[in-house]
Amino acid sequence: MELREKIINKEDIFKGKIIDVKMLDVELPNGKMAKREVVYHNGAVGILAFKEDKVLIVEQYRTAIDDILLEIPAGKIDGDEDPLECAHRELREETGYISENIEYIGEIVTSAGFCNEIIKLYCATDLKYVGDDRDDDEFLNVKEMPVAELRELIGEGKIIDSKTLSAICFYDNKNKAYSNK
Amino acid sequence: MELREKIINKEDIFKGKIIDVKMLDVELPNGKMAKREVVYHNGAVGILAFKEDKVLIVEQYRTAIDDILLEIPAGKIDGDEDPLECAHRELREETGYISENIEYIGEIVTSAGFCNEIIKLYCATDLKYVGDDRDDDEFLNVKEMPVAELRELIGEGKIIDSKTLSAICFYDNKNKAYSNK
Repeated sequence: MELREKIINKEDIFKGKIIDVKMLDVELPNGKMAKREVVYHNGAVGILAFKEDKVLIVEQYRTAIDDILLEIPAGKIDGDEDPLECAHRELREETGYISENIEYIGEIVTSAGFCNEIIKLYCATDLKYVGDDRDDDEFLNVKEMPVAELRELIGEGKIIDSKTLSAICFYDNKNKAYSNK
Repeated sequence: MELREKIINKEDIFKGKIIDVKMLDVELPNGKMAKREVVYHNGAVGILAFKEDKVLIVEQYRTAIDDILLEIPAGKIDGDEDPLECAHRELREETGYISENIEYIGEIVTSAGFCNEIIKLYCATDLKYVGDDRDDDEFLNVKEMPVAELRELIGEGKIIDSKTLSAICFYDNKNKAYSNK
């Protein structure tokens, strides 16, 4: 079955600092026309950072859900910044750790139905603490959480951030982590 | 450290069929004011559906990334629809299968930085084919994919949908699936 839509027109709805919103006119595979609301985002990175058997987890308020989440360190790509450099920068800024061993493990589309955001995910090891580099308007706590505790929190529904869960899926898939238990 | 922001005002930017966009004024923990661009979405469900050792995977064009993705069956919650009922409905509509055994496995925030979308994830077993119920403007292929192939595709970077990866993370975390390998 032909699946692709043909994008005919994009109309600007909103241009923000973090997101743009456009209304698209598309032609469906059956020739009919349809509208699509699309959110455009420059992309981000997330880092699953291991300090021996502990993972760095950031506790942070998120305005969109008006609640505090537990997430891996992450951040937006600045303009055309290299994603790996962004991963190094965000790890340092948010947690105070640097790593000479940051490896790409996979990428995710966060909300395929209406948003083009892609988050590139990395695994960092051999961490060295040099002090964080947060600005005055960033408020977060960094936890060093044993992997076993992280898995318990996932089972209890206390880790709900999609990039964090996806990073663990990529990591486990790569390392067959559970087979060692 | 105090993490919470206080939401002072919400201004409507866009009201669409799928998303609304608002500009929020917030008071930071240090008393300063800031702006937040927030996308509001009614929420969705995703279903990790097992037919013996195969998983139902939907192949679908996604306008936002202008590409074809492999995803678990999923869909938007209609108004105040019960999420479990939505899971039954979407499984039937998209794949043609029904299940009397759909179990909640966890929920995700897809894009915590700017969007309130929450996807509730379910695991379905004991599938029975009754025929799909798609409307004329829905174009997708349903694949019955062996779990081993799904894990291979994840390793090859061919499964990038965050709800699909998160569902597998929840499932593996619950069942310690890898330990049986």
